[in-house]
Amino acid sequence: MHIRNLITFWITAALLPVIVRAADPVSYVNPFIGTTNFGTTNPGAICPNGFMSVTPFNVMGSPDNRYDKDARWWSTPYEYHNSFFTGFSHVNLSGVGCPELGSLLLMPTTGELEVDYHLYGSEYTREKATPGYYGNHLLKYNIDTEVSATLRTSIARFTYPGGKSHILLNLGEGLTNESGATIRQVNATEYEGCKLMGGFCYYNRQGVFPIYFVIRTDKTPQQSGYWKKQRPMTGVEAEWDPDNGKYKIYSKYTKEMSGDDIGLYFSYDTKPGEQIQVQIGVSFVSIENARENLECEQQGFDFDKVCLSARQQWNDILSRIEVEGGTDDQKTIFYTALYHMFIHPNILQDVNGEYPAMESNKILSTSHNRYTVFSLWDTFRNVHPFMTLTFPDRQLDMVRTLIDMYKEWGWLPRWELYGNETLTMSGDPATAMIADTWLRGLRDFDTDAAYKAMLKSANTPGKDNFLRTDNDDYTALGYVPLRETFDNSVSHALEYYIADFALSQFAQALGYDEDAKSFAKRSLGYKNYYCKDFGTLRPKLPDGKFYTPFDPMQGLNFEPSPGFHEGNAWNYTFYVPHDIKGLMRLMGGENAFVKKLQKVFDENLYDPANEPDITYPYLFCYVNKEAWRTDYQISRLLAKYFSNKPEGIPGNDDTGTMSAWAVFSMMGFYPDCPGLPRYILTSPTFDKITIHLDNKYYSNKTLVIETERPSADAIYVDKISVNGKHLKNRFISHEDLVNAKTIRFTLKRH
Amino acid sequence: MHIRNLITFWITAALLPVIVRAADPVSYVNPFIGTTNFGTTNPGAICPNGFMSVTPFNVMGSPDNRYDKDARWWSTPYEYHNSFFTGFSHVNLSGVGCPELGSLLLMPTTGELEVDYHLYGSEYTREKATPGYYGNHLLKYNIDTEVSATLRTSIARFTYPGGKSHILLNLGEGLTNESGATIRQVNATEYEGCKLMGGFCYYNRQGVFPIYFVIRTDKTPQQSGYWKKQRPMTGVEAEWDPDNGKYKIYSKYTKEMSGDDIGLYFSYDTKPGEQIQVQIGVSFVSIENARENLECEQQGFDFDKVCLSARQQWNDILSRIEVEGGTDDQKTIFYTALYHMFIHPNILQDVNGEYPAMESNKILSTSHNRYTVFSLWDTFRNVHPFMTLTFPDRQLDMVRTLIDMYKEWGWLPRWELYGNETLTMSGDPATAMIADTWLRGLRDFDTDAAYKAMLKSANTPGKDNFLRTDNDDYTALGYVPLRETFDNSVSHALEYYIADFALSQFAQALGYDEDAKSFAKRSLGYKNYYCKDFGTLRPKLPDGKFYTPFDPMQGLNFEPSPGFHEGNAWNYTFYVPHDIKGLMRLMGGENAFVKKLQKVFDENLYDPANEPDITYPYLFCYVNKEAWRTDYQISRLLAKYFSNKPEGIPGNDDTGTMSAWAVFSMMGFYPDCPGLPRYILTSPTFDKITIHLDNKYYSNKTLVIETERPSADAIYVDKISVNGKHLKNRFISHEDLVNAKTIRFTLKRH
Repeated sequence: MHIRNLITFWITAALLPVIVRAADPVSYVNPFIGTTNFGTTNPGAICPNGFMSVTPFNVMGSPDNRYDKDARWWSTPYEYHNSFFTGFSHVNLSGVGCPELGSLLLMPTTGELEVDYHLYGSEYTREKATPGYYGNHLLKYNIDTEVSATLRTSIARFTYPGGKSHILLNLGEGLTNESGATIRQVNATEYEGCKLMGGFCYYNRQGVFPIYFVIRTDKTPQQSGYWKKQRPMTGVEAEWDPDNGKYKIYSKYTKEMSGDDIGLYFSYDTKPGEQIQVQIGVSFVSIENARENLECEQQGFDFDKVCLSARQQWNDILSRIEVEGGTDDQKTIFYTALYHMFIHPNILQDVNGEYPAMESNKILSTSHNRYTVFSLWDTFRNVHPFMTLTFPDRQLDMVRTLIDMYKEWGWLPRWELYGNETLTMSGDPATAMIADTWLRGLRDFDTDAAYKAMLKSANTPGKDNFLRTDNDDYTALGYVPLRETFDNSVSHALEYYIADFALSQFAQALGYDEDAKSFAKRSLGYKNYYCKDFGTLRPKLPDGKFYTPFDPMQGLNFEPSPGFHEGNAWNYTFYVPHDIKGLMRLMGGENAFVKKLQKVFDENLYDPANEPDITYPYLFCYVNKEAWRTDYQISRLLAKYFSNKPEGIPGNDDTGTMSAWAVFSMMGFYPDCPGLPRYILTSPTFDKITIHLDNKYYSNKTLVIETERPSADAIYVDKISVNGKHLKNRFISHEDLVNAKTIRFTLKRH
Repeated sequence: MHIRNLITFWITAALLPVIVRAADPVSYVNPFIGTTNFGTTNPGAICPNGFMSVTPFNVMGSPDNRYDKDARWWSTPYEYHNSFFTGFSHVNLSGVGCPELGSLLLMPTTGELEVDYHLYGSEYTREKATPGYYGNHLLKYNIDTEVSATLRTSIARFTYPGGKSHILLNLGEGLTNESGATIRQVNATEYEGCKLMGGFCYYNRQGVFPIYFVIRTDKTPQQSGYWKKQRPMTGVEAEWDPDNGKYKIYSKYTKEMSGDDIGLYFSYDTKPGEQIQVQIGVSFVSIENARENLECEQQGFDFDKVCLSARQQWNDILSRIEVEGGTDDQKTIFYTALYHMFIHPNILQDVNGEYPAMESNKILSTSHNRYTVFSLWDTFRNVHPFMTLTFPDRQLDMVRTLIDMYKEWGWLPRWELYGNETLTMSGDPATAMIADTWLRGLRDFDTDAAYKAMLKSANTPGKDNFLRTDNDDYTALGYVPLRETFDNSVSHALEYYIADFALSQFAQALGYDEDAKSFAKRSLGYKNYYCKDFGTLRPKLPDGKFYTPFDPMQGLNFEPSPGFHEGNAWNYTFYVPHDIKGLMRLMGGENAFVKKLQKVFDENLYDPANEPDITYPYLFCYVNKEAWRTDYQISRLLAKYFSNKPEGIPGNDDTGTMSAWAVFSMMGFYPDCPGLPRYILTSPTFDKITIHLDNKYYSNKTLVIETERPSADAIYVDKISVNGKHLKNRFISHEDLVNAKTIRFTLKRH
């Protein structure tokens, strides 16, 4: 039975140890949004872009769980509809589709010491989550749990009912498929250790990395020790060893304990209502750094102080954009989406600046923020344009990080995770991301190195090319031919076209005219795939013939599809944002284009959760008189797929990409093509949106978007004016936008 | 098929890299003696009392092995009749009955890298073993292996046939039942790590301890890395991970690798005949100490130098006793037995003096040798009297070690293993061992502490008494009653009597007359068990009645026996060495005693491999006219059970106890009772035995035992003279013996 109370965050906000001002944007964040329906976000405590997150872990150990990590593909530490809590996982991924991290499981219990998570797990109630804070009540133990975080460390506060009480740290379980940990006692209240992670998405099985940690409690235990699941023995020795195949408790030994499935425990005798606090400091460099992180970011044990600081950090981020009008739910959807955009990429370096170098065992030091968890194929299209606009400092450090990675490894990353290129997804998104940033005016990075890195990826032969493995075909034929049924060849090529377009724009701006021409030409190779018979892109063979048989519908619901990755031909056919006009001509002109695009929505061929088609609804604006279709679809899609509910994200948040789609769309503008520094406009959700721009980069201090909305159902744009000047179409350049004092929308009902 | 050539050691000696002088006693050692028939010795390379031993490991991974550690109770890394070699184990136990240590398996291979020992193991031939050296030839790989050792470090030299070549260090397997290791690369040719050991004999499951190590090669590998057996996954993820449930190779990652079943490898491309040397330094304190041990004990890689030094150390030990006459086989049996007595106890401290304190996580430092692996219940009866006589420096350090353990832990140990009391066997043998040493004249230790420690064990109530758990019954009733069928109650009490006798002698000598009287009285409590009906000892109930039903034969062949441990009533009835005359009276006098004792031998009730009865053949000497029976039995037992063959020890060597029996017996004298500083004499095996006494402790430089033997079958003592003076019986005091210039035996045929 699932017995959690559905107490929403603002009801419980009054119970929180920090003072909540209703006006704070942070009070509009509902961290439960996206925690089911495969949104894969979680309600854990985290600071903006911190690597520490502390998340309730409820995806193992009970048949009552609806989703279990060991029974199916599962990529998130928390599922809203599960019920069996086995601890707080430390350092987690949010909005991803493969299992990784989500380890160092911290669990309070009472009664006799039990270290098997099947047995020590508990149902829970009274969940509360606000940015930087999560708490619940464990029904089995009558324990109140609360957690918070700094950038690199965590704090938990457990309130016990009294009597025999324990704190467990399980190092054997977690989301990651790698195993193996070692721990060592430092003193009565402190242990240190490390655990292996990695192998994300199984493409790069060598991509493993250690997490180092220090754990401290504020109360000296009566007893502490380790446990380890014993390897099963056979024969007569199995009879002699009472621990054979079971969890063995080591109550006396305090030196190194290593193994696949180990843990440590602290045991106490508590008074009723007694609180014990636990801190964990983490580093990806060393145990020493983990300790230094802990000592720098927390002085002593002060749960409320950590919690308040986390909340303030979130408020500082979220208040960069103020919204007025709209419903509370809409504000919640907006600020929660914004919140989800500041989880990844997250910092990697320790307080002393050290970090593990890219694809290397070296430790380097940095003076700027070193970021990690770059799901670039997702984020290059909207998250980074958003950062460029709103948080240029962060975006620049992210670009600098990518260039540092190139300098360290020799390649720009595609899907980087804690120093490892996971080789997940396809293409060369870093090229587009960096070029786009530069073209939007953020240029304080090593442009020469960036350009060199892009050229290397664009020009290196396939066999030596980490990013564009089909580069020989691509450069020779202008397209990637289908050589194996499920080789995703069209999807690969479409990514190269987009990257080459951004690169051509960048080359042009840098004065490399020849390169610019060449890459611009390459970017139009998509035309090879256009099949007039079907009116869609279609896989092509090495000899230039189209792949047969062909069904443009094949690929729905993640079924394999020849030539296309995680989608069908319809999800990819409009995926040439840099040459929509060219595509339009191929399709037979404006009317045919609009008809075909409308068909995607009418026939339910639009996937709101997969990146290649998420710009589709904006493409109607290419035909000005049909721009109302954009307004309609954006309004419909926001209402249908984004809600103030746990299922309120249409699928994997993809490290903020879905959220960025919602944030932009609710503000009434969207960056439709990396490398084109502009936006497409649509009707905003809110009546007034104030974006506080960073004066270090933009002379305009505030951009205000005002919307005159005659009624709630007036969802169509009637007029747009920028600084009082009427705008004839739906396109606005990045420069015009950032220099606009006011953009005024006038909406109409139909 | 078992294809090893049976090349005995002296044939191959000429092939060895060290120069062998025929006269060296070391050339008479055959390390293969005791390597089958459950002798549990091994032919590995070791220095006298060093903790490093390097042993061919052939007890896992092949159905062709006759004895497999995973198929049965198995306690030794090597079995002579097995055929499947899976590497050299580092730090091993010799002559014990429970599995422990025998880990850090070092294996050379060729061809494609294979890390599953079932697959990389090899048959072998051309085994060679001499003290400090072992070598063989791996048939699967055409590799010659050679190993040697210093006190705390090892060196291996592998001669490859050329081509792809590897060195593996397997940390997942070994004899110990504990698992879990961690490793880390230091540089291209060096790794460091630690592994858990312990739980010996399953009595003290908390008795675990880490072994720390550093491994180096003398050639930079082309590639190195780790492996780890992956935990099995279920469901769809199992399909995605190609390593699921298998050994995964980590070829790139070099930071901490931890797990239950991990290893590391170095890969090379070798030239035909190319040699690669590998060193391992070990410590029980820290990795740093392991490295310091390695750097102090080996400068650079010089296999031959290490090998020669080990051989010289052995020669220094063995030449303390010179023998003349006898056959080569007899000399081999003698010197190999002597060799086996200098394996345990072994040193524990690092070159810097640091060691792990007893039953503690503390690290302490020592100025004398700190010994470990005290199988005291075995060794107190003959090994330590031998050390007292022949190697007083060593014996004193062993005594000091026991007293230090008491100071660290609060108790004297019984069966200590690397800082842990394993609680194996029974009784209080350290009391007898220390008292006996003092009574034989070695007194340079903290006598007050020793006496206090003995009193604590003798007088502490049972529930708080680690050593004498039945002390309440014992002190109240004078015996330990049978309270559970298989509680070994009689065996326990017999140990207490022996300890109390030694303690009474010690107390008397120290002037504690009251204590002396009290303990002397306690030591006679064995009479409670004597049952006239059966003429044997018999378990007794708390109410004073004998246990019924009773069969004095029950307990043969290790079957459980009420009241008796690993034996039957006959194996224990004469086990009151301190009051044989009293026992004789109980039995009805000399004739009845001799008759009963003779019955033991006539009816095959004598177990030559279990300690309680191994003094039996000497007890005939209590009746002077029957002493010839001692000569007969000793001669017969030596011939029957001790041979220059792999089966040449009658059972577990018990860390040298069986060997000590042979060494003493072959020299013609035996210490029959701890606490009685004397020996019983019998006909020596050799014509002349010269014992070089340590002048620091004994004024007499050499003790010569000469034997006039009219013919080879003249096995009976006719006359004995000490310094020319006729001896009337078979007893000689320790003082008389050490002061004797010459003891002359004249033998006769019947």
